[in-house]
Amino acid sequence: MSRDTRICFVGDSFVAGVGDPTALGWAGRLVADTHAEGHPVTAYNLGVRRQTSTDVRARWLGECLQRLPDGVDARVVFSFGVNDSTWEDGRVRVAPEDSADNLTAMLATAAAHDWRVLVIAPPPIDDDEHNTRTAALDARFADICAAAEVPYARTHQPLSTDPTWRHEVRIGDGAHPGAAGYGVLAALIRPSWREWLSR
Amino acid sequence: MSRDTRICFVGDSFVAGVGDPTALGWAGRLVADTHAEGHPVTAYNLGVRRQTSTDVRARWLGECLQRLPDGVDARVVFSFGVNDSTWEDGRVRVAPEDSADNLTAMLATAAAHDWRVLVIAPPPIDDDEHNTRTAALDARFADICAAAEVPYARTHQPLSTDPTWRHEVRIGDGAHPGAAGYGVLAALIRPSWREWLSR
Repeated sequence: MSRDTRICFVGDSFVAGVGDPTALGWAGRLVADTHAEGHPVTAYNLGVRRQTSTDVRARWLGECLQRLPDGVDARVVFSFGVNDSTWEDGRVRVAPEDSADNLTAMLATAAAHDWRVLVIAPPPIDDDEHNTRTAALDARFADICAAAEVPYARTHQPLSTDPTWRHEVRIGDGAHPGAAGYGVLAALIRPSWREWLSR
Repeated sequence: MSRDTRICFVGDSFVAGVGDPTALGWAGRLVADTHAEGHPVTAYNLGVRRQTSTDVRARWLGECLQRLPDGVDARVVFSFGVNDSTWEDGRVRVAPEDSADNLTAMLATAAAHDWRVLVIAPPPIDDDEHNTRTAALDARFADICAAAEVPYARTHQPLSTDPTWRHEVRIGDGAHPGAAGYGVLAALIRPSWREWLSR
């Protein structure tokens, strides 16, 4: 593969790798793997703390247009939703139907730009009620991606029962894991990632 | 240090770490060091390939405003200039006085937002004429930063004679080093970085 592949990782603090002492996060781990396999992709990490799908929708296109010029193998990986499910001031920060609408709109815009897309599920944190809401969103996102024929990596359920993920989130800030947890998440994404990159 | 430090690394492909198989670049290496020293900063890498100071000036503020909310220890690291010095269609892509004006304007805007700034010199590539132009820009940037009382890490000259940097750039794409070269650059920046972060 000698394509000039450029990938924007778009989303929230989990995309940014917050809490990871190695400064790689799951995205950096996958990019380093891919480099080791002989495919040196250009990666742009556009994860931002506290952002909901509504926040991401408002800024992602402008940021990606700066980074994905014509003539390259241009791709976008999306992951968001945990912050949508946060209970704040008596309601969730983003209603599930609005989260769904945001994802649908972003997938349509990416398709219009001929950008290949991979979507990664929002992960569980150390709060069961919050996770119940996120899991419901995960199911919606899976349906939306299936309808749009976009691959969706279902990482939420395996992370919910992963002892490393759960332990690191609990001893961390209650939401983000450390290096081992990000390694677990990267390993869960890897099969979808490889299949997607090979297309 | 328990401050909530958030740092945007703004600039070109060298900031993005293009060519580094570890996916860290110099920025990731410094962030990992700082984490190991007990200060887990949030880092946002906003380096973009091929961008000149004019390109960066057009997009950096919007991107940083998304990432540097009020109430945090908000910081920006700038590094650009190599693409300004590229000879294209019978002239440099950005005239030196315009590069100077761009840096001056960005420093003023950052100061107006109370964002602490560190500037890193544009590095040498495998092209002596290009490097002569970049070195002239480096001298201008140093003067501008001194006048603005912003620290400026003078990495251009030591990299010009560094055998690891020169070798990796030459065997790479002619501009970017590999992992060892980014390690050399991170080591050159480290003293300025530590001093700057401690303030």
